[in-house]
Amino acid sequence: MISGGRSEMTNKDGLNGAESEKKLSKKELNKLAKQQKKLEKKAEHATACVEENVKEVEEDVSEGRYGTYGIIQSAERRELDFTDVKDVLASLEGQEIWIRGRLHTSRIKGKTCFIIIRQRMCSIQGMLFVGEEISKQMLKFVGNISKESIIDIRGVVKKVEQKITSCTQKEVELHVTQLFVVSAAEPRLPLQIEDAARLKEEDKNTEESSLSVVNLDTRLDNRVLDLRTQTSHAIFSIQDGVCELFRNTLKKRGFMEIHTPKIISAASEGGANVFEVSYFKGSAYLAQSPQLYKQMAIAADFDRVFTIGAVFRAEDSNTHRHLTEFVGLDIEMAFKFHYHEVLEMIAAVMIDIFKDLKAKFKYEIETVGKQYPCEPFEFVEPAVILKYSDAVKLLRENGVEIGDEDDLSTPVERFLGRLVKEKYHTDFYVLDRYPLAVRPFYTMPDAKDSKYSNSYDMFMRGEEILSGAQRIHDASLLTERAKHHQIDLEKIRAYIDSFKYGCPPHAGGGIGLERVTMLFLGLGNVRLASLFPRDPKRITP
Amino acid sequence: MISGGRSEMTNKDGLNGAESEKKLSKKELNKLAKQQKKLEKKAEHATACVEENVKEVEEDVSEGRYGTYGIIQSAERRELDFTDVKDVLASLEGQEIWIRGRLHTSRIKGKTCFIIIRQRMCSIQGMLFVGEEISKQMLKFVGNISKESIIDIRGVVKKVEQKITSCTQKEVELHVTQLFVVSAAEPRLPLQIEDAARLKEEDKNTEESSLSVVNLDTRLDNRVLDLRTQTSHAIFSIQDGVCELFRNTLKKRGFMEIHTPKIISAASEGGANVFEVSYFKGSAYLAQSPQLYKQMAIAADFDRVFTIGAVFRAEDSNTHRHLTEFVGLDIEMAFKFHYHEVLEMIAAVMIDIFKDLKAKFKYEIETVGKQYPCEPFEFVEPAVILKYSDAVKLLRENGVEIGDEDDLSTPVERFLGRLVKEKYHTDFYVLDRYPLAVRPFYTMPDAKDSKYSNSYDMFMRGEEILSGAQRIHDASLLTERAKHHQIDLEKIRAYIDSFKYGCPPHAGGGIGLERVTMLFLGLGNVRLASLFPRDPKRITP
Repeated sequence: MISGGRSEMTNKDGLNGAESEKKLSKKELNKLAKQQKKLEKKAEHATACVEENVKEVEEDVSEGRYGTYGIIQSAERRELDFTDVKDVLASLEGQEIWIRGRLHTSRIKGKTCFIIIRQRMCSIQGMLFVGEEISKQMLKFVGNISKESIIDIRGVVKKVEQKITSCTQKEVELHVTQLFVVSAAEPRLPLQIEDAARLKEEDKNTEESSLSVVNLDTRLDNRVLDLRTQTSHAIFSIQDGVCELFRNTLKKRGFMEIHTPKIISAASEGGANVFEVSYFKGSAYLAQSPQLYKQMAIAADFDRVFTIGAVFRAEDSNTHRHLTEFVGLDIEMAFKFHYHEVLEMIAAVMIDIFKDLKAKFKYEIETVGKQYPCEPFEFVEPAVILKYSDAVKLLRENGVEIGDEDDLSTPVERFLGRLVKEKYHTDFYVLDRYPLAVRPFYTMPDAKDSKYSNSYDMFMRGEEILSGAQRIHDASLLTERAKHHQIDLEKIRAYIDSFKYGCPPHAGGGIGLERVTMLFLGLGNVRLASLFPRDPKRITP
Repeated sequence: MISGGRSEMTNKDGLNGAESEKKLSKKELNKLAKQQKKLEKKAEHATACVEENVKEVEEDVSEGRYGTYGIIQSAERRELDFTDVKDVLASLEGQEIWIRGRLHTSRIKGKTCFIIIRQRMCSIQGMLFVGEEISKQMLKFVGNISKESIIDIRGVVKKVEQKITSCTQKEVELHVTQLFVVSAAEPRLPLQIEDAARLKEEDKNTEESSLSVVNLDTRLDNRVLDLRTQTSHAIFSIQDGVCELFRNTLKKRGFMEIHTPKIISAASEGGANVFEVSYFKGSAYLAQSPQLYKQMAIAADFDRVFTIGAVFRAEDSNTHRHLTEFVGLDIEMAFKFHYHEVLEMIAAVMIDIFKDLKAKFKYEIETVGKQYPCEPFEFVEPAVILKYSDAVKLLRENGVEIGDEDDLSTPVERFLGRLVKEKYHTDFYVLDRYPLAVRPFYTMPDAKDSKYSNSYDMFMRGEEILSGAQRIHDASLLTERAKHHQIDLEKIRAYIDSFKYGCPPHAGGGIGLERVTMLFLGLGNVRLASLFPRDPKRITP
């Protein structure tokens, strides 16, 4: 089927002229014919180098054992059994297996070719020796394959005497018997995978500092390549884990997943920082949070809900922790008498997530740590809950000038995080009972001191990851507070009306997924925890 | 703590003047004082009716056993043990329990008061008898509570002799000993819950036809009330189930969850049907699907990915099955040699979901069936996969005039669904190898006949729920096809470039969550399967 220098899998008989003529115009037919030609030419070209080699000698002992498939267009089904690189262990010694992966590097040294095949977080060494089975032509062909091409390799698993330090599979290598190109990469890459995966400048020691490191913008401009690093794969495995653990722990607690609209009719919280959308003949906005809708679900008796989805903020903040679009993990829950029923539950959810991440993603956390070295994330159980007024006291004791009802600036938050870490040995804590003045209009005032409110933030390594509160569930108190905040009541009519027909007391919060990932791993930039980050200056790729 | 006519839980000592004066201006202080007064007045007013009653007689034997809490502001924590209505079974006979629920109806008949308490999909009858423990005043108080108010009830579980047909808990009732209002509903409701839960007009028999049914627009205008019906709760439980089963079955198959951006820089597929967003000083668009980003994840070696998120379509289609914003369940998967590896997997995923829904949501499906009667959803395993050309043949045999490369209109799709159902006894099937001409530019042409393509749709009850294909993974073929479709190459540069550096062959598809829910249950309108539906005419509530 597949032979050296031949590609049977490309579209050779794509145009059944007789059939097509009935329906296609001449122009269309010509176009199709041209496309067909190009495809054929492409396949021919891809194999040209091999054919050239074939000319050199009479016989190629490797014929049929190497080449390129051409574009896989599903012309035939083949039942080859592929092994994952991570599963290629010493126990497979002597077995001949197929693997499909990226050509990470190749190097010819005399009659030997060394290659490294990369597959997500794993890599393995492959060897070709010119001899009875491997021709010089085949060696040359393999040496000419551009880095990052996807290749199919058949090879025999061999234990090695000295550990291979440059690969994740250190005990074994593959003695290649067949090799085919599945999809060729262009020879010139806009960045080298190993450069994108290197330690940050400031963390490098002098010995390494001559090696190039790719700056973040270049990496994000070429995100498809940047995402191929083992670090990126580890980051997004962990992020996948955060979502799964979040849902699982909430499901166990009787929560239901809902989906809330992103297109909304009014910019609810005063109109700042909202993206406007053209909506047919009118206009609409992108939701800054699912909160109003989560609350309506509570007013509709859904009782315990969560939702995971895009959240939009039109803030022109170009910092390490702001995105204009991020993934919100949102919780809302009816409680019986006290919002701490909810606060404590959310804190327990976070602790559950941290515990499971540490247990299940040890390898991934270590992998990320190689590029972004960082102290392991510490936490105590149950979570530390600090009153805002006590935090203010602690800050004053440590020389920070701050008023009772002042909000915390980002540097002060970080400093507070360090103080809390010293005192309580935790990178995660809850700050409770914020001043009413610094919270949104729908926040329930404290029952005993209306200077404060039933609201809280949660922090990881001194940075905010969740903001939450008991919400006002009474329509007239809500109206009053909205007026106080000078919000146009007409614009939030539907929201206020939802509380007119009986609503249980409830509280909740919204977690930023990318921030949790960034801060758990100590990445230093939230963009690294977003597959395709969006900020005021970037909406592409 | 809580007594008849008294509410200790409202904010009585909210304003600590001395503390606040330091920070607040006089104006603010006045405002807060006014708010405080209003809160107090409210609490007083809420209990006025009870106090009035107290005046009438010297002694109220129920004092302290009824009343209203006022706004629960988390003033104190109380450890009452509440029982879910669904768990109130005959086995609890004789026990005194607390429940919190909605007052669904109440009716006084002499010295007895019948109430029905509703909690999500369940309801239970409560009884109050004037006597040693229940005063006339308490009976009157209960009789005056407006429907849809949230109440706390303490009562003794009693088995009944005759089944209670009007409640889901048919074997037991509660003999009420205490009753408090948690959150009062306004006395006039814009719609009655039982009217919103009634059978559709066309399904009613003559006997019932005098009862009012609420039209869909009124229901959606008052969605918070409409969502309280047992039908709505059942629908969204099932929808929650679809998402969970989708994820679980994919996780088992080695898929990873990713999150793709909704804000994109270019309207990729020619620019039609895209919402435009003001993005700082420029503009952007809302993604019509996560597809391009799923594909880039594949080009970055993520191999098997899924994503669940909002998808936006600026189509001015006012039909039973179109929304301008819906939830997409999207899959993308690298395959080895043939896109059927993917197609068969997706079909198996759907079958897994159907099987589990039937097994785990029997009660919910029955509940929905009461308001939306429908034949049970049928399917066969493995799924029926029909070639497009064979479907055209089948249609022609049944009198439909259709060209080889014509797309199917909605009525034809439905008719085909009926033919397939007759022939194969399934409400779910796959239509494979669509004409290339009717598919998007990135669709891989068929290897053997370029009139066709490696693409497929999946159908439930004759309506499309998934569209998918093998995508072109080769940058130059993709460029060619984009040109053929007259797409501005500059606008999709980043997308095309993703395939320049090696990409495995891959295929995938996008499923509409609301459509799956609607069609599985036979709801007849996709809006019923969206918590807060968005269409060209509705972006509120």
